[in-house]
Amino acid sequence: MNHPNGRRRNTQVILVKRAKGIPQAEHFALVQTPMPSCPPGGLLICNVALSVDAGMRGWVSEEVGYASVPVGAVMRSYAVGEVLESDCEDYRPGDMLCGHFNWQHYCAALPQAVMWKVDTAFAQPSLWLSAFGISGLAAWLGLTDYVRYVRDETIVISTAAGGVGSIAGQLARYRGLRPVGLVGRDSKVQLCLTQFGYEQAINYRRADFESLLQVSVPDGIDIFFDNTGGEIADAVFRRLNPGARIIQCGTAAIVDWSSMPSGPRREREILVKELSWSGFIVLNHMERAKAALPELRQMMVEGHLKIREHILEGIEQAPGAIAMLYAGDKDGRLSIRL
Amino acid sequence: MNHPNGRRRNTQVILVKRAKGIPQAEHFALVQTPMPSCPPGGLLICNVALSVDAGMRGWVSEEVGYASVPVGAVMRSYAVGEVLESDCEDYRPGDMLCGHFNWQHYCAALPQAVMWKVDTAFAQPSLWLSAFGISGLAAWLGLTDYVRYVRDETIVISTAAGGVGSIAGQLARYRGLRPVGLVGRDSKVQLCLTQFGYEQAINYRRADFESLLQVSVPDGIDIFFDNTGGEIADAVFRRLNPGARIIQCGTAAIVDWSSMPSGPRREREILVKELSWSGFIVLNHMERAKAALPELRQMMVEGHLKIREHILEGIEQAPGAIAMLYAGDKDGRLSIRL
Repeated sequence: MNHPNGRRRNTQVILVKRAKGIPQAEHFALVQTPMPSCPPGGLLICNVALSVDAGMRGWVSEEVGYASVPVGAVMRSYAVGEVLESDCEDYRPGDMLCGHFNWQHYCAALPQAVMWKVDTAFAQPSLWLSAFGISGLAAWLGLTDYVRYVRDETIVISTAAGGVGSIAGQLARYRGLRPVGLVGRDSKVQLCLTQFGYEQAINYRRADFESLLQVSVPDGIDIFFDNTGGEIADAVFRRLNPGARIIQCGTAAIVDWSSMPSGPRREREILVKELSWSGFIVLNHMERAKAALPELRQMMVEGHLKIREHILEGIEQAPGAIAMLYAGDKDGRLSIRL
Repeated sequence: MNHPNGRRRNTQVILVKRAKGIPQAEHFALVQTPMPSCPPGGLLICNVALSVDAGMRGWVSEEVGYASVPVGAVMRSYAVGEVLESDCEDYRPGDMLCGHFNWQHYCAALPQAVMWKVDTAFAQPSLWLSAFGISGLAAWLGLTDYVRYVRDETIVISTAAGGVGSIAGQLARYRGLRPVGLVGRDSKVQLCLTQFGYEQAINYRRADFESLLQVSVPDGIDIFFDNTGGEIADAVFRRLNPGARIIQCGTAAIVDWSSMPSGPRREREILVKELSWSGFIVLNHMERAKAALPELRQMMVEGHLKIREHILEGIEQAPGAIAMLYAGDKDGRLSIRL
């Protein structure tokens, strides 16, 4: 356990201004603050791994949304940390927990900030922010609670090599679907095929993307697990089969939603093809983790769940990490080790 | 029973050219053909009432779609007719049936063209093309198979006084929802409030439509039963509550889908508000009539299902009837009596 003995101060990443588009390092600042104490009925946590998620863009965007972080506040994030002190019955010093502990070294947390206990003997802390964290839960929820399917149906997944997409692809394959991945780089095509269980993978930046997609889904598309929206999604919609189901899990392709972007009207396709299109925010369904984690653990035990990681060292990397995520030039799941 | 004894010829309405936009009388022609005989294993039907449905536009539009009628063919329609001759066991001469008997006096039909038997002692033939026909089934299906709800939720219904909408409004009220209707004329506002069970009704052509809508749904909108799409639907989307459900039952507001129209992108709202949006074509679910008809009959027995009718006299009225429907200047359900 690499928690920083001897630190007497806390380092925190605070939001200094809201972002239009992708948040950059300049939107955040590192500050030194006094070491917090354990709150009454709560916990003092020493973070060991901080999450970097696509959804963070929404939390700090100019368009005030479902989970906005106030300017001046510590940046919200999931983290894995060790309990240093406890004033509540459920957790003891030494317990490893995943929760809303934010971008900082130490967190004075109330028990409701805890998401679940972490088994670092089974998997290292960063994996509890990916496979066994919000990403794994998002992939599992989308494919469990928001869509019905039968074996051998074709599912297209956008940002197919990303934090959620790479797990969704493997889970889809594990359950007998035929996953086709959409990615933004040729190197990720290979990753999808060799690591993440995809039958086909396509770089949507290629000029011949649409014809490649057509060839890759000779029987059309039954399910679309969409993490991007925008023109990538438009191409997928053109190949949806009657009765197709769309899961909206992210909207990464459209950076600025503050003015409503335009696109093809979907009413007619939804009617005539009898489509069903549902969205969800994983934060609203955390209680489903109890059902999700056993299946995800089982997949890993059986060798069917692979996570590529790109681990940044030190909290100083946090302010630039969201921009790095959206640049898409890292081939693994981003997190920050403290 | 008013079937035309003594006719020796058939009168049929055939499609002479496909329509861009709303089909007009000029897209059809009346022709005289020999009286058909009863086909082996089938039925000879004498139609007494012909249906005029919004969905017919799609069947004859330039954009070839899910149920296109070939140029030169008899116009497809539902109809109620009497069995004159039968060569199948299920039906006998004198039976009144609803089915795909098309715009013509006589139909040589196979048994699979029959939708259901009609009880003209309970309700006159035209009502088996509305309350107890496709319109009633569409309203019932949308509110039964495509949406979950709890009592007192607010449902907005577009084309609220139309064939499907007027039944959807009454069914929604019957089941304890709070229906708000959108219509295109002030006279229909009154109809919605006095006849069709709506708590509120708004003319979407008014300049202050959006503010009227806002006032009419102080708690937001939980369900949207959409028969129009387009800008009317856009205004409704702006007032949808988190977790709202959208049923796409028609797209009457957008006349030309042959070039894909543009509108606001929905991906972000679907995600952040956790919306669920589903469409259906009633023709694909005819087997559900067995479950739908008893509830609709019960509503009528109890006085909770009112149908206003506008009945045209004679097959000569058929070619112009779809245009009349879309003009929206009739306050009742259109059909043609033969």
